Amino acid sequence: MSAPFAATPPPPYYAVVFTTVRSDQPGHAGVGESADPDGYLAMARRMEELAAAQPGYLGIESARAELGVTVSYWADEESISAWKLNAEHTLARETGRARWYERYMLRVAKVERDYGWSHGDAPPDAD
Amino acid sequence: MSAPFAATPPPPYYAVVFTTVRSDQPGHAGVGESADPDGYLAMARRMEELAAAQPGYLGIESARAELGVTVSYWADEESISAWKLNAEHTLARETGRARWYERYMLRVAKVERDYGWSHGDAPPDAD
Repeated sequence: MSAPFAATPPPPYYAVVFTTVRSDQPGHAGVGESADPDGYLAMARRMEELAAAQPGYLGIESARAELGVTVSYWADEESISAWKLNAEHTLARETGRARWYERYMLRVAKVERDYGWSHGDAPPDAD
Repeated sequence: MSAPFAATPPPPYYAVVFTTVRSDQPGHAGVGESADPDGYLAMARRMEELAAAQPGYLGIESARAELGVTVSYWADEESISAWKLNAEHTLARETGRARWYERYMLRVAKVERDYGWSHGDAPPDAD
């Protein structure tokens, strides 16, 4: 299974499930017509870029509607801890609480099994 | 941490991460102006309703943009297996492959730790 999904290896590996509700986005004086007035999208892109450069990073899958659901995949717990200590990531979390998020939930989970299906495949054995 | 997040208990519990790419949606002859021409939204709502009635169901968090990311939470592996055997759920998976999905990925993971934050809270201890 390739893009747009994370190219994860056979289990076990780790998933970090980050679900978020954005703050109201009133727009910031002087920023005018920007499509990203509070810098949220730029931050999100930068965090993906930084995470991808971390040891043990396996990929990310993300969508936002009423809720944001972002799942990042990691080789092991040590990789997750190291990413958490990254200085720019730490600053982004602080800014997130001050500016971007109304609330969030984070769950660290060990993936025990997985399977994929793509148009043209037979139904997965696991199904 | 309450709605809109799943009201999960203290870990351990299970997360099923289901990421999907929809098929092209050409619309179906005779359905006209329906906002749900291929029945996808009705199926998704029905599956949430059915899942919520299953033993061991703990909640669901979902968003769709380019990708759909749906995470359902369960008390244990037995609950996940029982939900999979539900006849209407099995039919929905078959219809999904025939009609709604271009590809998907499913991962079953054991949540080992979690924490939440809400506006007005101090930063989480875990952060």
